[in-house]
Amino acid sequence: MHTYWSKLARNLVPYVPGEQPQDKKYIKLNTNENPYPPSPKVIEAIKAAANDYLKLYPDPQGQELRAEIAEYYGLAQNKVFVGNGSDEILAFAFMAFFDPGRPILFPDITYSFYPVYAGLCNLDYETLRLNQDFSLPVKQFCRQNGGIIFPNPNAPTGKAITLKEIEEILSNNRENVVIIDEAYIDFGAESAVKLINQYPNLLVVQTLSKSRSLAGLRVGWALGEDNLIKALDTVKNSINSYTLDRLALAGAQQAIKDEEYFQKVRKKIITTREKTSRELLKLGFTVIPSQANFVFVSHPAVPAEHIFQRLKEQGVLVRYFKQPRIDNFLRVSIGTDQDMETFLQVIEAIVRQG
Amino acid sequence: MHTYWSKLARNLVPYVPGEQPQDKKYIKLNTNENPYPPSPKVIEAIKAAANDYLKLYPDPQGQELRAEIAEYYGLAQNKVFVGNGSDEILAFAFMAFFDPGRPILFPDITYSFYPVYAGLCNLDYETLRLNQDFSLPVKQFCRQNGGIIFPNPNAPTGKAITLKEIEEILSNNRENVVIIDEAYIDFGAESAVKLINQYPNLLVVQTLSKSRSLAGLRVGWALGEDNLIKALDTVKNSINSYTLDRLALAGAQQAIKDEEYFQKVRKKIITTREKTSRELLKLGFTVIPSQANFVFVSHPAVPAEHIFQRLKEQGVLVRYFKQPRIDNFLRVSIGTDQDMETFLQVIEAIVRQG
Repeated sequence: MHTYWSKLARNLVPYVPGEQPQDKKYIKLNTNENPYPPSPKVIEAIKAAANDYLKLYPDPQGQELRAEIAEYYGLAQNKVFVGNGSDEILAFAFMAFFDPGRPILFPDITYSFYPVYAGLCNLDYETLRLNQDFSLPVKQFCRQNGGIIFPNPNAPTGKAITLKEIEEILSNNRENVVIIDEAYIDFGAESAVKLINQYPNLLVVQTLSKSRSLAGLRVGWALGEDNLIKALDTVKNSINSYTLDRLALAGAQQAIKDEEYFQKVRKKIITTREKTSRELLKLGFTVIPSQANFVFVSHPAVPAEHIFQRLKEQGVLVRYFKQPRIDNFLRVSIGTDQDMETFLQVIEAIVRQG
Repeated sequence: MHTYWSKLARNLVPYVPGEQPQDKKYIKLNTNENPYPPSPKVIEAIKAAANDYLKLYPDPQGQELRAEIAEYYGLAQNKVFVGNGSDEILAFAFMAFFDPGRPILFPDITYSFYPVYAGLCNLDYETLRLNQDFSLPVKQFCRQNGGIIFPNPNAPTGKAITLKEIEEILSNNRENVVIIDEAYIDFGAESAVKLINQYPNLLVVQTLSKSRSLAGLRVGWALGEDNLIKALDTVKNSINSYTLDRLALAGAQQAIKDEEYFQKVRKKIITTREKTSRELLKLGFTVIPSQANFVFVSHPAVPAEHIFQRLKEQGVLVRYFKQPRIDNFLRVSIGTDQDMETFLQVIEAIVRQG
């Protein structure tokens, strides 16, 4: 068993993404994908980039995309890093900023890729217990540490913290890098991007996968001081010079440019989320107030695992995490209004039957 | 300087890809790209995949692409790993198979990314001095080691070793993983793929970038025993679940399928390489016999660095490596017949002027 594997590989416990079953057509509310298609301009740009130039390497730095993102956020271009989805960027950031022997901090209930990255980099970590209402224990982040990472809004809870709370964490942690994983930021929370010029230790990571309907294109970015961006480039260029292909670069630029489409889609999802939350409350669910494109819910009478299984049998996929404190909760991605109506009908019948 | 950087990041010396200057239009013979466009079927498949499904994550395992490659090579599907170009796969392989404290072996003149990966994984390495004629010192690879990697054909020399020599290395190294980097295999050397079923420690890495004209799409694969593939998957899934976007997956499948186009292009390049080699010999150049899509050449009277600069001034980019033993050589990628005619005219004038 595991002959030829390195010590590192033997000790890795990889991340397991949400299931993508092919056995039948599901209403897919399990991986926080956007139910709406990407901007038609993105599709057009990709088709235009599907040309003979695919024989040539892409720009290894993706400078045009960096420029587009920099302009969008009003930052200098050297404050932008681009990569193959925010997961890859987070892996690079763990390598670039955290050291073994100096424990990093993240919440006990959060994105389950963080402990995987820690394993990859042989890092120690301490998890901070979320408050009873699943809010982030802001003051706890002010203890000594070797770095901090948390999503805002948090996953799978959907709860966000305010910019003031973020500043409290940043101003008490000037020695170490603080990574804010803003995968879900566009659904209602306030981005920490505007703090970058004040805090040279702040790295904000975002993605096209959720709010811009491009999970299938694999593009994310990190924003922070030039010095942090250089470290990410150093790690990237020690692994793979060209992480973004020509099609992803072309599509991503258009996704940033088409602000009107982006605003329309994200607002639509927020509206559907609020409606879905209200309906779930009527059915007796506890609904954690969400600022993401999903809701985190629990029923006082019917166990979450039971609901999860019954939903799946009836063609609706949601996410269930069998882990302490949240094993009676379901994470439900926000689909179209029609998706959510079907979901609500099915879940209503399930909780009625008990 | 380097505040906030991890110890790892401070010590990294990243790879520097060949330049991609934008100041004017060059005849680009510096990054071993294919001068011919990808198969029209690839372009078509990408355009078809540029659709609303980009909102959904790609298959994290790329099973359909793995199946296509497995069928092409007559291997079981669990002997195929796919990734974002062979560079990324090599980085994963260094993490998956090599351990600090057990020096790995590679040639002293070879792909300059290998020492970078070693730095990334904190590995010791020993370089084996190529023979005077730049052939691989096969017997030297039979000394004790923690793993072996070499390209076949080697880069930047273009020299290949035979399957019999590969077997000599493999049969003397049953304890450690032997990685054969076959980025240039389709231009004349014999692939070690047929040895996979005999040697559970053999990993063969290939790419779409060169022979299938898709440097801009970022797709490579590794072939080896199930056990080795599982280790690569474990590393990948600890960094990024989805390294290949939907467009790359769709295009890559067609690139493997279109055997007729592939054969036509690779044969054309071999013919042009042979013709170019003959012409360079006539001009007095030493030309290392190449089985790749480039030639490695030296002039007895005119220094390589001088030729490199003069070529660039006249719109022809080639690659010059300022390092011991090869600092009087140029690596020239094989372009179209027309590219090579222009190149030969320009270089002839340069060496005549001295």
